[in-house]
Amino acid sequence: MAERHHSRRGLFALGGAALAGGAASATLTGCRHESSSAPPADRVPFYGTRQAGIATPTQNRLAFAAYDLTVDASVKENRAALKALLKTWTAAAAAMTQGHPVPGVNTNLGAPPADTGEAHGLAPANLTITFGLGPSLFDHRFGLADRRPAALEDLPHLPPAELDPDRSDGDLAIQACADDPLVAFHAIRNLARIGRDTVVMRWSQLGFGKAASNGADQETPRNLMGFKDGTRNIPGHDTDLMDEHVWVGKETDQAWMRGGSYLVARRIQMRIEGWDRDYLADQQKVFGRHKYSGAPLTGSKEFDTPDFKAKGPDGLPVIPATAHMRLAAHENNSGIRILRRGYSFTDGMIPSSGELDAGLFFIAFQKDPRKQFVALQRRLATHDALNEYIQHVGSGLFACPPGPEAAGHTWAEELLA
Amino acid sequence: MAERHHSRRGLFALGGAALAGGAASATLTGCRHESSSAPPADRVPFYGTRQAGIATPTQNRLAFAAYDLTVDASVKENRAALKALLKTWTAAAAAMTQGHPVPGVNTNLGAPPADTGEAHGLAPANLTITFGLGPSLFDHRFGLADRRPAALEDLPHLPPAELDPDRSDGDLAIQACADDPLVAFHAIRNLARIGRDTVVMRWSQLGFGKAASNGADQETPRNLMGFKDGTRNIPGHDTDLMDEHVWVGKETDQAWMRGGSYLVARRIQMRIEGWDRDYLADQQKVFGRHKYSGAPLTGSKEFDTPDFKAKGPDGLPVIPATAHMRLAAHENNSGIRILRRGYSFTDGMIPSSGELDAGLFFIAFQKDPRKQFVALQRRLATHDALNEYIQHVGSGLFACPPGPEAAGHTWAEELLA
Repeated sequence: MAERHHSRRGLFALGGAALAGGAASATLTGCRHESSSAPPADRVPFYGTRQAGIATPTQNRLAFAAYDLTVDASVKENRAALKALLKTWTAAAAAMTQGHPVPGVNTNLGAPPADTGEAHGLAPANLTITFGLGPSLFDHRFGLADRRPAALEDLPHLPPAELDPDRSDGDLAIQACADDPLVAFHAIRNLARIGRDTVVMRWSQLGFGKAASNGADQETPRNLMGFKDGTRNIPGHDTDLMDEHVWVGKETDQAWMRGGSYLVARRIQMRIEGWDRDYLADQQKVFGRHKYSGAPLTGSKEFDTPDFKAKGPDGLPVIPATAHMRLAAHENNSGIRILRRGYSFTDGMIPSSGELDAGLFFIAFQKDPRKQFVALQRRLATHDALNEYIQHVGSGLFACPPGPEAAGHTWAEELLA
Repeated sequence: MAERHHSRRGLFALGGAALAGGAASATLTGCRHESSSAPPADRVPFYGTRQAGIATPTQNRLAFAAYDLTVDASVKENRAALKALLKTWTAAAAAMTQGHPVPGVNTNLGAPPADTGEAHGLAPANLTITFGLGPSLFDHRFGLADRRPAALEDLPHLPPAELDPDRSDGDLAIQACADDPLVAFHAIRNLARIGRDTVVMRWSQLGFGKAASNGADQETPRNLMGFKDGTRNIPGHDTDLMDEHVWVGKETDQAWMRGGSYLVARRIQMRIEGWDRDYLADQQKVFGRHKYSGAPLTGSKEFDTPDFKAKGPDGLPVIPATAHMRLAAHENNSGIRILRRGYSFTDGMIPSSGELDAGLFFIAFQKDPRKQFVALQRRLATHDALNEYIQHVGSGLFACPPGPEAAGHTWAEELLA
């Protein structure tokens, strides 16, 4: 399997000796095993001016977790605890993304291993670990109220939504993406574990099939309604579009966010039983696309540019006024675009209805959610034909700061300096 | 990606015309596209004297579902409805495992498509769909009480268990395994959908990393406790062991089960937070194995034969009397063996404790659960050191009849003849 090309095995064997010194040693261990400066095809560099996991080509699997801080002392002590947590988390994330275990002692029989071990022997599988800070972090606890960016304003009510607080919000968030679900799960589990004196996991979500490609793949994936999703997404490698729509620039009121991005997560439940009873023609009108080819209703191939002005023999628009694709299109939204990086999910059944609890865990990155996600969703909220079949049941907004540039640097370093 | 070598695309394009005739046409469509009699590397033959998904090398992902029948008429009518359901299900399963959509019309604009479409364009990914019948099916509704095999006796209480009825039992069960989670999910969703006048899904479970290999893979996977699981499993290709332990033979009291097998499923929740705080030495004593190499504590390599008599300098057994591996070993259980085919799962958090709801979805196949799973689990229940860290929270027992031998045959045909 492609997932296993670069084994963690050899690295782990050194664990007791080489890793006893923590993060610095782990980095050295990595260097010893890599003869070329180009990263192998199954690992994504962790350090850099941007966090990985945003422009990075969408991996196949997601493990997302939101955490709440449990510290309850003075502002000074709370802040020190947060800084210590992020230092430990950054070092652990750096190690895990490169296929190393959590730094620390793993082979001492008289202690719990630093790493939980279930990913031992697996390749890094292009693991990225992306970190964000929620609005609630900027309350009284850490003395950060005046460092809160205006763009990190709580999301307003945006129908169709009935949000479950147990699946929403959080002080901190981790998006772990990989081509192996065990590797992604291992990341959020171990971050929870090594932070257990400071944080608790508030909610988590696994995504089992990517539902939005950011342009680097050849095939656009399908969502659980059977439609291609993400055809018109921002390609992560298009630096002009990324600078224009995704990366925070000098327009920000908070310099610590420059080079970062804002993550909006929405757990969108699909009423798939009802959807599956709908006629093919109606399904296609809801999206504005042909189901199988993915082409706009005015075209024949997936990447054909939609013709929003075209009318049918009946005089009505071929792509209906309420079609999801029309309402979400940047042409019809003053050029507004977002980078989507969502995943399909299914979590058993909804107890109240007996229907499948399945849908889209929507993730979008943007430079200002007020002007992008919120503006787009307001428009969809009013007119989108898709609303009959979906409901937002979870929500999160997180400020993802720029990347730690190199070993020794830490997530959100400038904010907490 | 390996998952996409054989696209469903070309086949689907024929859907409207070729598939209008249903299952028979779908089979023809398949023939048209295959020039060789050997199945391609990404699809497993559906028809045969044994059901696929038992001896088949373990795929990477699982979607398991239990269904209850909703029919409520006379025995004769109920039975006719069950027969009709299984005929439709068999044809749909045959099609899906070969990369075809659910048989029926998929391109008529004025009707709901027969297939929900999310797997369109994906390869079959070695999908197997394995079918089982629960003890509850043999009540008054279908006139099958006298056809119930003695081996399909309800499982007794087997600690450590606190079973949730909403995650247990069911009239029918489907085990869908594939190397692509979307393909596996698509199977259980579509079977529920096409059976919606006759069945409702009772519970379902996704497995996201195989937790037991049946011998055809090079690497033994790890469970979420970080230990290798399945090292001593029955290899599916060992026909002697399969005949001895897994396939029902002439010893059965019900001829319709000859060539079949019994599936036991247990949703085993792991207390992983507590486990992660345990010393490495203690973890290793619980399993009786070295964590990283997977070797028995009396050996140095994973496949070394354990020496259950070896004693340490302290005079105590090197593999403790309460070690999971000792208690489960066939040497210590009068030669009893089972074929395990379980998967790891994680489903968010347990509301009452805030701990991760994660563990092992244990699946085992055997010729008589009374003499195999139940006998083994009774022994484990009393002495296994692992019990401190696990709890069985869901359970199912299903009789999996022999395979439909060829197109035109149906699951459980002999039972319902």
